Amino acid sequence: MLLATTAMAQEAIHQQRTISSPVVNNDGTVTFRIQVPNAKEVKVTGDFLPKKRMQHGNNVWEVDSVATMQPEGKGVWSYTTGEGVDPELYSYHFIVDGTEVLDPSNFMRSRDGRRYTSNFIVSRSANDTGWYYQTHDVKHGTLSAVWYDSPTLGMQRRMKVYTPAGYEKGGKYPVMYLLHGMMGDEEAWSTLGRSVQILDNLIAEGKAQPMIVVMPNGNDNVQASPEADSPFSGTLNTRFIESFPDIMAYMKANYRIKEGADNTAICGLSMGGNHTFGTSKMLPGKFGYIGLFSAAVTLSNSRKSTYDLLQESEVQTQLAQLFASKPHLYWIAIGKDDFLYQQNADLRRYLDEKGYKYEYRESTGGHIWRNWRIYLREFAEKIFK
Amino acid sequence: MLLATTAMAQEAIHQQRTISSPVVNNDGTVTFRIQVPNAKEVKVTGDFLPKKRMQHGNNVWEVDSVATMQPEGKGVWSYTTGEGVDPELYSYHFIVDGTEVLDPSNFMRSRDGRRYTSNFIVSRSANDTGWYYQTHDVKHGTLSAVWYDSPTLGMQRRMKVYTPAGYEKGGKYPVMYLLHGMMGDEEAWSTLGRSVQILDNLIAEGKAQPMIVVMPNGNDNVQASPEADSPFSGTLNTRFIESFPDIMAYMKANYRIKEGADNTAICGLSMGGNHTFGTSKMLPGKFGYIGLFSAAVTLSNSRKSTYDLLQESEVQTQLAQLFASKPHLYWIAIGKDDFLYQQNADLRRYLDEKGYKYEYRESTGGHIWRNWRIYLREFAEKIFK
Repeated sequence: MLLATTAMAQEAIHQQRTISSPVVNNDGTVTFRIQVPNAKEVKVTGDFLPKKRMQHGNNVWEVDSVATMQPEGKGVWSYTTGEGVDPELYSYHFIVDGTEVLDPSNFMRSRDGRRYTSNFIVSRSANDTGWYYQTHDVKHGTLSAVWYDSPTLGMQRRMKVYTPAGYEKGGKYPVMYLLHGMMGDEEAWSTLGRSVQILDNLIAEGKAQPMIVVMPNGNDNVQASPEADSPFSGTLNTRFIESFPDIMAYMKANYRIKEGADNTAICGLSMGGNHTFGTSKMLPGKFGYIGLFSAAVTLSNSRKSTYDLLQESEVQTQLAQLFASKPHLYWIAIGKDDFLYQQNADLRRYLDEKGYKYEYRESTGGHIWRNWRIYLREFAEKIFK
Repeated sequence: MLLATTAMAQEAIHQQRTISSPVVNNDGTVTFRIQVPNAKEVKVTGDFLPKKRMQHGNNVWEVDSVATMQPEGKGVWSYTTGEGVDPELYSYHFIVDGTEVLDPSNFMRSRDGRRYTSNFIVSRSANDTGWYYQTHDVKHGTLSAVWYDSPTLGMQRRMKVYTPAGYEKGGKYPVMYLLHGMMGDEEAWSTLGRSVQILDNLIAEGKAQPMIVVMPNGNDNVQASPEADSPFSGTLNTRFIESFPDIMAYMKANYRIKEGADNTAICGLSMGGNHTFGTSKMLPGKFGYIGLFSAAVTLSNSRKSTYDLLQESEVQTQLAQLFASKPHLYWIAIGKDDFLYQQNADLRRYLDEKGYKYEYRESTGGHIWRNWRIYLREFAEKIFK
């Protein structure tokens, strides 16, 4: 009887999970399913659907479209995309009678700031975009959650550190600092950002140098992500930038790192692009590779324009010192539809006027993870070579 | 306009999150809230509610009770517990018109096998049960996801490794192997199991020795948890036990560990208790501290009784060798209401008959995380001393 009891309990768990969702069909379309017997109306939304432009007064922004799901009997609702879905990592959720519900059949979920989504990866062949985000049978690096002391911010803080396969065997490695955006935290790049898979795969293929990747928490007033009991936060000021030497000191004391600008890179998305812009000019000669991904050149809740910021004598002096140190790469990447496009155009104009050397990468799309993962992959291939 | 757009988008995100839930009230009760304007019926269930006994034919099992929530206007539904809630970590979810929904206001979520739940911790004073599960301002250890090679299972496999604060400064440390249960994986003990917080807090208080804790994946046919792209699994055989030396070899090669039985502990819950029982007798003299937490002494889908198992000459020989090696501690812990109670009673009777020394800890409650976290804390305090 006792044995049967366990089997029974397991069965009860399994019964709720007999639906397969999402399923990538042979024709490249994707089918989503959820079993909700009492529902009147079920929808699915996610970044696999086209963006929809919203307007409220003078404000314009984009959201994912919403598709209506159809009942297919036994309380199961389904939706199949009208056309094939490109290789990528996608985020989605269901809306059951107005309530947001994640896909109970899908164990791949992530948190992006305050949002939880279900996720799936489409990959059709080796080396397509989705392939880089999957765990393949290559040598894997280690991802650690470490705590460092920040005297500047007056607290212990958590960050994620990726060490490449083979690190434990000895030797020194170059370091990339990889910074998240507003509403994100130290978990962002290793979850939706797929930094671990991207680095594992690039290094295994010989496309990137083995490197340590440091992913700190850029919100200066918390110790860690809410998953580590810290309250949520979204501060926008320069305190995190001022505290950056604390992180570098921790890495020097606790990891076998190659030092100097030739072996040190910094990059980040959105607010993390701002932190990259600010940190690299505050510490000229420390970073040989600098990557701005959809960067908020000015903090996006400040009223200061990029043009005004670049007129400030301190900023001009710092940028002059930074470019006098001749970084190997100052890389600006942004999507055509990004709401920060103009800030980056202003920055490029300034750099052009001054004759400061940079590389520019313009992609399609807007302020989205799809672009940031691609930028990380491209940037990682360019550095420490 | 661009600035306003971002502010707007943020506001849209915030609007969905203005409800506070759960809230621990001054009188010790807890209030849950969710905003679902279209709902007809909203319930909450979780392990803060009393267990309910279910019966189906000869099968009896226990589930959490379900409480009906009340509308309080503006589409918000709420439920307040009838009495104060004890210090603990609790898991719960809402049921909105029959559909399982996690708490959108609560960022603390975890996955236990195939189940996702929202979680909250109640702590009223330092050193109460809930306090040990929180992140306090003490020195923190590092939690790493590492991949090891298992020649026995023919694959690379992922595990979590906790190194105590100060490990990076040098020195050698004792090792505890901490094993999960059926439907679990290498994430279980560091999420719902709160192993990181428990060890950080015990070590900071001087109640446990600084130690390395190794949390492997006990499902022999997968490489890692579904979060690392592995399919779900729940195999029950002895293959994982046979592969255990691969894990120990990896630890010896890659960490500064103190070797020998005096410095090596193994423990686990349910199926992990079976793995502990099997591994410790397969490798007599390797583990000086052995902890069975609600152990499935026989694998729970086998038809073999504990009594029959203990009649097998190979098992008897192995147990004789194990106890001849004089382990410092053979600890059996189980709850009065656990469905595996009789298996453990049979094991104890056998050990008594043979005169093999063990310690027995009987708690209230059944086959639940609440007990396993408490057992981990108690076991960690007893070892390496």
